[in-house]
Amino acid sequence: MDAYGFLANVREKRPLVHHITNWVTISDCAQVVKSLGASPVMAHAAEEVEEMCGLASALVLNIGTLTREIVDSMKVAACAANKRKIPVILDVCGAGATSFRDRTCIELLDTVRIDVVKGNRSEIARVAGRHVHTRGVDSLFVTGDLGAIASELARKRGCTVVMTGAEDIVADSGKTLLIRNGVDQMATVVGTGCMAASVIGAFAGASPEDPTLAAAAALSCFGIAAELAAVGFAGPMAFKQQILDNLYALDRTNTRARQRIVE
Amino acid sequence: MDAYGFLANVREKRPLVHHITNWVTISDCAQVVKSLGASPVMAHAAEEVEEMCGLASALVLNIGTLTREIVDSMKVAACAANKRKIPVILDVCGAGATSFRDRTCIELLDTVRIDVVKGNRSEIARVAGRHVHTRGVDSLFVTGDLGAIASELARKRGCTVVMTGAEDIVADSGKTLLIRNGVDQMATVVGTGCMAASVIGAFAGASPEDPTLAAAAALSCFGIAAELAAVGFAGPMAFKQQILDNLYALDRTNTRARQRIVE
Amino acid sequence: MDAYGFLANVREKRPLVHHITNWVTISDCAQVVKSLGASPVMAHAAEEVEEMCGLASALVLNIGTLTREIVDSMKVAACAANKRKIPVILDVCGAGATSFRDRTCIELLDTVRIDVVKGNRSEIARVAGRHVHTRGVDSLFVTGDLGAIASELARKRGCTVVMTGAEDIVADSGKTLLIRNGVDQMATVVGTGCMAASVIGAFAGASPEDPTLAAAAALSCFGIAAELAAVGFAGPMAFKQQILDNLYALDRTNTRARQRIVE
Repeated sequence: MDAYGFLANVREKRPLVHHITNWVTISDCAQVVKSLGASPVMAHAAEEVEEMCGLASALVLNIGTLTREIVDSMKVAACAANKRKIPVILDVCGAGATSFRDRTCIELLDTVRIDVVKGNRSEIARVAGRHVHTRGVDSLFVTGDLGAIASELARKRGCTVVMTGAEDIVADSGKTLLIRNGVDQMATVVGTGCMAASVIGAFAGASPEDPTLAAAAALSCFGIAAELAAVGFAGPMAFKQQILDNLYALDRTNTRARQRIVE
Repeated sequence: MDAYGFLANVREKRPLVHHITNWVTISDCAQVVKSLGASPVMAHAAEEVEEMCGLASALVLNIGTLTREIVDSMKVAACAANKRKIPVILDVCGAGATSFRDRTCIELLDTVRIDVVKGNRSEIARVAGRHVHTRGVDSLFVTGDLGAIASELARKRGCTVVMTGAEDIVADSGKTLLIRNGVDQMATVVGTGCMAASVIGAFAGASPEDPTLAAAAALSCFGIAAELAAVGFAGPMAFKQQILDNLYALDRTNTRARQRIVE
Repeated sequence: MDAYGFLANVREKRPLVHHITNWVTISDCAQVVKSLGASPVMAHAAEEVEEMCGLASALVLNIGTLTREIVDSMKVAACAANKRKIPVILDVCGAGATSFRDRTCIELLDTVRIDVVKGNRSEIARVAGRHVHTRGVDSLFVTGDLGAIASELARKRGCTVVMTGAEDIVADSGKTLLIRNGVDQMATVVGTGCMAASVIGAFAGASPEDPTLAAAAALSCFGIAAELAAVGFAGPMAFKQQILDNLYALDRTNTRARQRIVE
């Protein structure tokens, strides 16, 4: 597969990506979509999420700073997205940390169609029903066959599962891809996980025919932008700025030379 | 007119600019006011917005991530601002995208005095009663005489209307000004529109006697900061940082040499 | 005392710092904790704050964009923190600006145990019962013996009091420390005060046995990061980025050479 082709598609189609997300990284999530050449929009009022979804090409849900009202709006928005058959990405941010987050993930997965479930290792393991120890929104060591956990959840829910980590895993019922782009320094920056979900939203919005390939391409491009940014790493904030600016500038040559997706 | 004189006035008077705004760009809006040498304050609880307005020199309302509670607080705050005769700026962010946003704009314009209505082309056209197609919070092509749309809305509402675009239009019932500062790269950054409204708030707070001239000066200075930042453009995030830092440092010489306001 | 030793302790223990904070600086507060090598988590729903506190090593409360629901969640979270004897830091952001903020500070101090009360001069003076004039969240001149105001409040409430300013004061019932790190340019950046509270949270979470020394060490390290960032100051945003990046990189040599804590 050719990750750059998916990026070029985003830049050409400029999908509108509707977010209902957390208050910590909301600005970065909007900017990462904008830096890709797509259009972000953030709206969470029950009064308008359905209508906003009517304009969008993808919906990104993130449970990072959840409230009951936000969950209700997510369900309304996801129903609207399901009707229009636009991809819905759920970032299970902090799953495993509280029962409220766990219940919300299950509630969403049970009541609406989620096309891509995305989380780090402990978050995905938790949503897959494993007992995990967490540290809030940071991942802890998860034992077992990570690919099997992702595949099992993908089959059970009939969706694409993205498990981020040193090596990202993207699985659906038929295939599993490994994405070996990205660098360790991403863990020094708040919001790389949330931004990755938004990038997946933009890619899936532009290429809705295969969310799994779109997600793999998204993670590869995001990781490549980070690899380029890590050269001369000067600290987390300078690094974050460069990830976003490199995504904006990512070209065919760099992307093709650096893409590391194992199919 | 002399845009720099208005900026110098902001730096001297250091107006407190109260915001009820969205969660995406709230940090940038606060910083842009701070970078001008003024004081930002953000507060949205119905319990305190009236009192906070009692301390402020201007009020900026932005409907970017609206809820019913926020609208109610906006009305309370605007009433307090009206009583104290401090300028109220309304950024009609996303007008045209949902009926909730459209209704809220009309509700605010009908129930409180708004001194400056600010939006991009499709947002202002929508508030002026035109049918528009939008892409969330990004402007789409609007046909017709843009200056006439702005002037008509200004006369109808008895306020200043700011329509941003490649050429910004600032109109009131008696005059129309064109501001030809700024660069295309501003469209790659989330929040330039919101920040522009906050800059207008600071300028109008320091020079409340003529919100139209204050708004024109604000847009000119903001655009000049962006022009200087665009030299050696290295990506949207680096560019945003430089816009904010250039505003902090903007001097008389650069501002006077670059000001392009057509009266 | 040795501020670097406290920083090294944060980096080793990587405390989880739970925040219930404002929407303006929430991203910077998360990043500053991450840049220290600790783990930030932000959650404010009444449904999950108790459980999140059960995972945390410190709790940071900030009243910057308060609502009634947020106050209720703060009380639940603080009760949970009190039971587990983890330090609770209260940033009385904007105290003196509205009676809602003043009442909330008193309500929290009266109903839960606060280990560290932190504010600028006018905020702390207000919480200590003085009449002050404020400009929103920016400090105004406060007359009188600042150290005495801080000590008096510390004795009355049986807690550590942090009063930030050109010279930071950290007082408890037995001692008063002066921290002479930091630079004037910090006043050009939105969120330095909020970030300082988060840094105190991380330091107190890693060294809960003496919140006063932990707070002094935190302010010294934060101030040193700012001093290093002020070299070649290029504007508020570049400066903020460098403060955060310097905190990440702060080493023993620089910290020991620059530490200015008067015991």
